[in-house]
Amino acid sequence: MSKVKVGVAGYGVIGNRLAAGVVAQDDMELVGVADVAPTLPVRALKERGMPFPLFAAVPGAEQGLEAAGIPVSGSFDDLLGEVDIMLDAAPGGIGAKNKVKYVAAGVKAVFQGGESGEVADVFFHGTVNYEKGLGVDYLKLTSCNTTGLIRAVHAVHASVGVVKTFITIIRRVADPGDTHRGLTNVLEVEPIPNHQAVDLMSIMPDIDATGMLIHTPVTHGHIITLSVTPKQKISVEAALEAFGNYPRIKVVKISEGFNSNSSLFQWARYMEYPRADMFEIGLWEEMVGHSGDDLLFAINIPQESVTIPETIDAVRAAMEMHATGAEAVAATDGFLGI
Amino acid sequence: MSKVKVGVAGYGVIGNRLAAGVVAQDDMELVGVADVAPTLPVRALKERGMPFPLFAAVPGAEQGLEAAGIPVSGSFDDLLGEVDIMLDAAPGGIGAKNKVKYVAAGVKAVFQGGESGEVADVFFHGTVNYEKGLGVDYLKLTSCNTTGLIRAVHAVHASVGVVKTFITIIRRVADPGDTHRGLTNVLEVEPIPNHQAVDLMSIMPDIDATGMLIHTPVTHGHIITLSVTPKQKISVEAALEAFGNYPRIKVVKISEGFNSNSSLFQWARYMEYPRADMFEIGLWEEMVGHSGDDLLFAINIPQESVTIPETIDAVRAAMEMHATGAEAVAATDGFLGI
Amino acid sequence: MSKVKVGVAGYGVIGNRLAAGVVAQDDMELVGVADVAPTLPVRALKERGMPFPLFAAVPGAEQGLEAAGIPVSGSFDDLLGEVDIMLDAAPGGIGAKNKVKYVAAGVKAVFQGGESGEVADVFFHGTVNYEKGLGVDYLKLTSCNTTGLIRAVHAVHASVGVVKTFITIIRRVADPGDTHRGLTNVLEVEPIPNHQAVDLMSIMPDIDATGMLIHTPVTHGHIITLSVTPKQKISVEAALEAFGNYPRIKVVKISEGFNSNSSLFQWARYMEYPRADMFEIGLWEEMVGHSGDDLLFAINIPQESVTIPETIDAVRAAMEMHATGAEAVAATDGFLGI
Amino acid sequence: MSKVKVGVAGYGVIGNRLAAGVVAQDDMELVGVADVAPTLPVRALKERGMPFPLFAAVPGAEQGLEAAGIPVSGSFDDLLGEVDIMLDAAPGGIGAKNKVKYVAAGVKAVFQGGESGEVADVFFHGTVNYEKGLGVDYLKLTSCNTTGLIRAVHAVHASVGVVKTFITIIRRVADPGDTHRGLTNVLEVEPIPNHQAVDLMSIMPDIDATGMLIHTPVTHGHIITLSVTPKQKISVEAALEAFGNYPRIKVVKISEGFNSNSSLFQWARYMEYPRADMFEIGLWEEMVGHSGDDLLFAINIPQESVTIPETIDAVRAAMEMHATGAEAVAATDGFLGI
Repeated sequence: MSKVKVGVAGYGVIGNRLAAGVVAQDDMELVGVADVAPTLPVRALKERGMPFPLFAAVPGAEQGLEAAGIPVSGSFDDLLGEVDIMLDAAPGGIGAKNKVKYVAAGVKAVFQGGESGEVADVFFHGTVNYEKGLGVDYLKLTSCNTTGLIRAVHAVHASVGVVKTFITIIRRVADPGDTHRGLTNVLEVEPIPNHQAVDLMSIMPDIDATGMLIHTPVTHGHIITLSVTPKQKISVEAALEAFGNYPRIKVVKISEGFNSNSSLFQWARYMEYPRADMFEIGLWEEMVGHSGDDLLFAINIPQESVTIPETIDAVRAAMEMHATGAEAVAATDGFLGI
Repeated sequence: MSKVKVGVAGYGVIGNRLAAGVVAQDDMELVGVADVAPTLPVRALKERGMPFPLFAAVPGAEQGLEAAGIPVSGSFDDLLGEVDIMLDAAPGGIGAKNKVKYVAAGVKAVFQGGESGEVADVFFHGTVNYEKGLGVDYLKLTSCNTTGLIRAVHAVHASVGVVKTFITIIRRVADPGDTHRGLTNVLEVEPIPNHQAVDLMSIMPDIDATGMLIHTPVTHGHIITLSVTPKQKISVEAALEAFGNYPRIKVVKISEGFNSNSSLFQWARYMEYPRADMFEIGLWEEMVGHSGDDLLFAINIPQESVTIPETIDAVRAAMEMHATGAEAVAATDGFLGI
Repeated sequence: MSKVKVGVAGYGVIGNRLAAGVVAQDDMELVGVADVAPTLPVRALKERGMPFPLFAAVPGAEQGLEAAGIPVSGSFDDLLGEVDIMLDAAPGGIGAKNKVKYVAAGVKAVFQGGESGEVADVFFHGTVNYEKGLGVDYLKLTSCNTTGLIRAVHAVHASVGVVKTFITIIRRVADPGDTHRGLTNVLEVEPIPNHQAVDLMSIMPDIDATGMLIHTPVTHGHIITLSVTPKQKISVEAALEAFGNYPRIKVVKISEGFNSNSSLFQWARYMEYPRADMFEIGLWEEMVGHSGDDLLFAINIPQESVTIPETIDAVRAAMEMHATGAEAVAATDGFLGI
Repeated sequence: MSKVKVGVAGYGVIGNRLAAGVVAQDDMELVGVADVAPTLPVRALKERGMPFPLFAAVPGAEQGLEAAGIPVSGSFDDLLGEVDIMLDAAPGGIGAKNKVKYVAAGVKAVFQGGESGEVADVFFHGTVNYEKGLGVDYLKLTSCNTTGLIRAVHAVHASVGVVKTFITIIRRVADPGDTHRGLTNVLEVEPIPNHQAVDLMSIMPDIDATGMLIHTPVTHGHIITLSVTPKQKISVEAALEAFGNYPRIKVVKISEGFNSNSSLFQWARYMEYPRADMFEIGLWEEMVGHSGDDLLFAINIPQESVTIPETIDAVRAAMEMHATGAEAVAATDGFLGI
């Protein structure tokens, strides 16, 4: 079978991880990536010897790139001419503009959670609604928090059914190295309703989800606490088994040293994972418990990399590479080494 | 009526606020405070002209204090000889040792939440169980988080009854200026059960409380999110009315600029409150909502000053200054200007 | 003598402190302050009972203010009609627009450091070039860092002369409560030359000043380290004497508990200074030393309040209230209680 | 030639990087590492399939390790029986105790900067005094800050000679994931003299070095600003050439995106360096300048990994693998891919 030809628009925090994720898939070929300026990730690509080609994301961008010594392999249209599907990780709002070009070029596309919902035909999550994405041209992922959240809630839902959930998102406010946004010594609050809870309901419409969000001045992962009202009570042991068997959830123990969001980042460093990236959400064994019949637990969301597997699942769905989500997820995870 | 004579042991973060709080009460007299070393608060006391006397908290401490130019008015025993009741804000564990002296001197005492439960006959909260403290010799306050938490939960409980509650404490990890502890770019988690929830149940035993706690690298107030299962559903409007009428709760609006824990600290600065202290917990109007019939809300705990009112209530109970909690709380708050 | 009538434009971080500073001056009268919206400081003014009147800083602003329950006493023109001089603490760039109105109304004005240099006839610093401001209509202060820096460098200059200085500004990146800017887990650098060093030279043109600036994720004060090349070597003792005798410098000891920028903020809280404001820069005794003949030392800049005294000095200069800077500074500081 | 057999004591932040560094050297063999408990790095070693064996660092430690499922290959004495030289990265103070065992076993050792000076015969820095370490049994490295600092100062010294230097260390206070220490919203100062400056003089005794140190709440690298008084003035261009030609210094541009300490950490991630480690110090091109004839510049110290190259150089010196430092450094860096 010939490989599916994939391009990536935007080579930033998400785009550079999508590119690496596609490279790891034996049944996909990364045709190239597109960006507009010689940012640090682009410069690192050059320093690494251009393992895959770079295209100018907008007309004229090649000038600034080449002035910085970055080889440019062609225009955005050139890239679109060679691919089956684009993974769009351009800044929010640009994806909608890019979509016009994708439609014109007859290529499919997968958008990230920051893009507005209208760009896509389906709001997609690999382990929950893969089948909805089958053969669809334009898919949109959920955001990093929602993607991880859905994994954990769906693990319970698939086991005993979920009626409602209350979540508190303790949000990391910036990524490492980010100097364009940040908070200093502040916990910032937001009014309810919370968009991550709303987005969860768009993927799992039979669940009543409500959330609160507090921004915190850290960079290594969001933490979410959850109270889940199940259709029938589930024991801690059964819940841990459900979480442990669910894809892309790593059950960890505080007693073994996983005592923070940063401990999971450090784990990725000690494991020598590229870019210190985790694809799994962390779930703390010692924080699983009950409030009445409600199941309580807490998860960690590695914001830079958590959506990579589900995005690759989306390629599999859009290109109809597998009939079921289970097969798609297994393929994605196998190649990613999860 | 003669004033109740009060002493304070430990003139640190809590002790210096207790002293100021007692000074503000027209029906109490601050006999003096005791400490062991010329710390910044002690030096500031001197710089302010010794508005009340300082005693050496342990034998020999007068030497270091006087070497630093701080006038010392006598020994700890001298202080105990002049007071009716001591407010013990010594570091955790010291209070238990001090209690031996209190018993020997025949003085009553109120301990802070950091002290072990055995030092006290009653675990006390001014607005909930004032009557239990009436005439009792040794009372212990709840911790800062628990004190504020109980106010908010009790507001609902007094209105419609509370069955259970799930809380997530997003804890500030250090006070301003603290260089002895701290976290840097970390959200640190803890196993459940959470001691604040356990402590809440010791004051309100008919409520099932479970909690999670995440330490965050900030200094200006804890934030707690709560899901409260009421005995009968309560509307947002009714809940806001209950909160607004409850003592020591300040309902604030994000839309008016109260968008963080620090905004409440700033409010105290703009109001020119001494030491930028708030005695009320903040409660965000736009974060009150529902998950099914459960009531959701979020509060802010000003950790340095929140327990001051309830500690002064404890003096009123121990000294039998008022028959009811309502009268005691009204007196305390009137003098504090809340 | 009749009091000088002063108005304040902008009631934010600086403006609310300027207003309080003017209120404290027995020979000045605060006619009122102007702002555009019901911000937290404006709401606190209302809550405090409007100790001085508020004016609408732009036409129409009274609507939003009054909708928030804030009494408005008139228009900006009304305010200008009653004052001798305006202290302009409007956001950067607005001051230049306001100046047109000041000129039209025939009132003098003092601008803050964030405003562009062209608005003013003189770049002013109370303790260094007071005489240059005598009778001048439009004065501009230096920024918070530069204002504090000049005090310390001038203390040495007035004693033994200064040839050159190299400064490293370790800048606090946001004020407490600020959610509009911030850094998280980053030390951000800037290219040289550094504008604070350039500004220092505009006030003290015979000194060669070069600087570096690193932004740090904290809120309680900038720290600046300095290497000063004197015209003749000065001993540590002589330097400490010069610093101790200079206005608005507080020499502090690490060994006494002043071990951080935040310790000075805490000192202001323990001293019960309004808003926890310090007017003095801190200078650490144990950090004064030598590199060859160069004098080394480090200072702390309380960014929210440090420019208040020099701004009030500027009123004294512009209104020719005193013939010399020494008299003006003594008057300002006496009323401020420094 | 047979490979030099190396062991590592302590598999923590430094030890796990030393182990990886030794593995990368074709002329060395990592016999194994020793630790006392199943920490995260040790658990990751297991998860990675034990690429090299682990020994129990103290008698009995094997029990806790094996209970955690970590295979243990023997005792510390077993490890010492197989190696030529040990790299001691045990916590400060343990190295001195370990030295008794090294002497008894007749193995050489290299200690890290945290160990007291008495454990070693020579205070070592690969690019400055390699020859002093030739054939020596017990060497001690400088600390992370000093190691990086010496590279930069020596680059100037080797070019035009250095008379004196004044440094300001803006210190990251904790490593990523560290919950045992940290600062929150504080810049903490220290009295002079500064130990890093003193240590620099112990390696380069003809230079007068003085320093100040400010602890900052960040994790991704120290920043040091320097003023260096050269024997003869050196231009910015010549200085940049000297820095660029010196081993283990990476000259970077703010204009290319290297605008912070974290940007260098991010660079390592984008380059997919294992554990996101940099071995070079960063030096900002746009921050090189002059104060009179003094040369000014600023460097970034990647605290977790900066000492790895010099430690491996120390093995080369102690084992007399190369006659000159230049050869040793070239070999180390070649294998490390610097």
